[in-house]
Amino acid sequence: MKVTALAGGVGGAKLAHGLAQALPPENLTIIVNTGDDFEHLGLKICPDLDTVCYTLAGLANPATGWGRADETWHALESLAALGGPSWFRLGDRDLGTHLERTRRLRAGQPLSQITADFCRAWGVGPTVLPMSDDPLPTIVLTPEGELPFQEYFVRRKCEPQVTGFRFEGAERAAPAPGVLEALRDADLIVICPSNPWVSIDPVVSVPGVREAVAARPAVAVSSIIGGQAVKGPAAKMYAELGIQPSALAVARHFDALIDGFVFDKVDSLQTAEIRALGIEPFVTATIMRTLADRKQLAEEVLKFGEEIVKRKSEKQR
Amino acid sequence: MKVTALAGGVGGAKLAHGLAQALPPENLTIIVNTGDDFEHLGLKICPDLDTVCYTLAGLANPATGWGRADETWHALESLAALGGPSWFRLGDRDLGTHLERTRRLRAGQPLSQITADFCRAWGVGPTVLPMSDDPLPTIVLTPEGELPFQEYFVRRKCEPQVTGFRFEGAERAAPAPGVLEALRDADLIVICPSNPWVSIDPVVSVPGVREAVAARPAVAVSSIIGGQAVKGPAAKMYAELGIQPSALAVARHFDALIDGFVFDKVDSLQTAEIRALGIEPFVTATIMRTLADRKQLAEEVLKFGEEIVKRKSEKQR
Repeated sequence: MKVTALAGGVGGAKLAHGLAQALPPENLTIIVNTGDDFEHLGLKICPDLDTVCYTLAGLANPATGWGRADETWHALESLAALGGPSWFRLGDRDLGTHLERTRRLRAGQPLSQITADFCRAWGVGPTVLPMSDDPLPTIVLTPEGELPFQEYFVRRKCEPQVTGFRFEGAERAAPAPGVLEALRDADLIVICPSNPWVSIDPVVSVPGVREAVAARPAVAVSSIIGGQAVKGPAAKMYAELGIQPSALAVARHFDALIDGFVFDKVDSLQTAEIRALGIEPFVTATIMRTLADRKQLAEEVLKFGEEIVKRKSEKQR
Repeated sequence: MKVTALAGGVGGAKLAHGLAQALPPENLTIIVNTGDDFEHLGLKICPDLDTVCYTLAGLANPATGWGRADETWHALESLAALGGPSWFRLGDRDLGTHLERTRRLRAGQPLSQITADFCRAWGVGPTVLPMSDDPLPTIVLTPEGELPFQEYFVRRKCEPQVTGFRFEGAERAAPAPGVLEALRDADLIVICPSNPWVSIDPVVSVPGVREAVAARPAVAVSSIIGGQAVKGPAAKMYAELGIQPSALAVARHFDALIDGFVFDKVDSLQTAEIRALGIEPFVTATIMRTLADRKQLAEEVLKFGEEIVKRKSEKQR
């Protein structure tokens, strides 16, 4: 079974890692959100892309989920001692990635090619694609005005109230080479448990991606468990936008895109409502604490996905 | 006594450090070569300026003379693992300096202001001035063509034969704010034991600097000892340019600029020839192995300089 996954940061990276353990590398493509990419200290930083790649490469910091394992912070300490901006935590090993990526971008290489080269160097088997080679920054709308995503997310610690989102330049952006092909050729599309608003919505805002996802059998894994996000501001965003944060809300969010929905046992009371949306529900333990959890959830998602694929093809016959 | 020193990298930084221990900070200005500055990995790197500042701040790597003490190399290792250019050794703590300097330069701050801010943050007492806020790259002329200085110095390890030097943009460059004033107001100018060709010549190539140095009592300290440079390619350069490398050659190099010349005991046989140039000779132990050596040499240079100043003012009366 050929699988194409859509992923944002830490939660998405964990399931992507599980899928990478459960599938041969040539059968897995991961399309990653680049809406939270930004320029900082003259460096192009791609937080979600790096989190996914580091996680797949076994280089990720197991404590934080982002950044590198065995990391040191000497460059940032030295910069902070000079009064430089240290609000965005850049470790020394991580800096090497940003320096080399920025160097290659300035030399004219597209992000997708750089990502492919980096994955080869890191020994990452599956194909990892940025959603687009074009900049497509996520802008957070707040009562105090528009905030670039990392300003909102890291500098302001998600404190400002959210009134909406804008994916700047989405109408002009092109999917990165391979993105539409990977969606078209997928037997199953998996939407990883990433923030629907700022990790998955940016990916499907790239022209052609929404239609390509909708055209194939797709399952999403809920990023909301018991009304809370495992990590990050997804639940806070739902609440601020006037929507009760829940697995059901996530299922509704992806309604037009998905055929099946995987959510946590603690939310099993929502099963009927999710089924009523015309979405096949699948209840299991979705919190990924250990490496084994990632693989197990991935295997369950794939098994459920296979059923979805089978039912859908039966229906179409 | 107000002293203004001209310095390049490691040797110059050591004597500057000695001078800083021997003089009250308000009486010492150090004008530093920026001809070997270059852009690398999108960062503006000022090797001599950093060596002088790190040395004065007590942050320098005592083993190498350049770079930071207690340094780690994780960013460069990470970059090298991705196939990035690692020929120029950038430590993690050092990177913090380059990132913050580059950020400020891009924001429009001049190098001299950034250097003053950094020195304040590092607790450096004397005034450290880049020779110019304008780029003035040293170009090494070789039979295989022109080489930017760091290409010659680090990447090619000074292997290509030298046929001459060019200080690109010298005619258009302005001395950094404070440079001409520091030279004019100096009771004594000290040319530190830095490479005459690529550390001191670039400084005096800045319009107005040569005349300002020549107008004041000045002593130079030889960077050649027993026909060899303590560090770096100075002796090799003299030989390739058809000049026997020696203390005498260095004295001749600075002939029009200096009144006194400090050189090593091992070269004492050259005393008469140096005196014959109309330059007052001073023979002592000039190799600075320990911190105490730096202070002792600085004190001897200052004492000798005081005599030069006295004699010169008597002559002019």
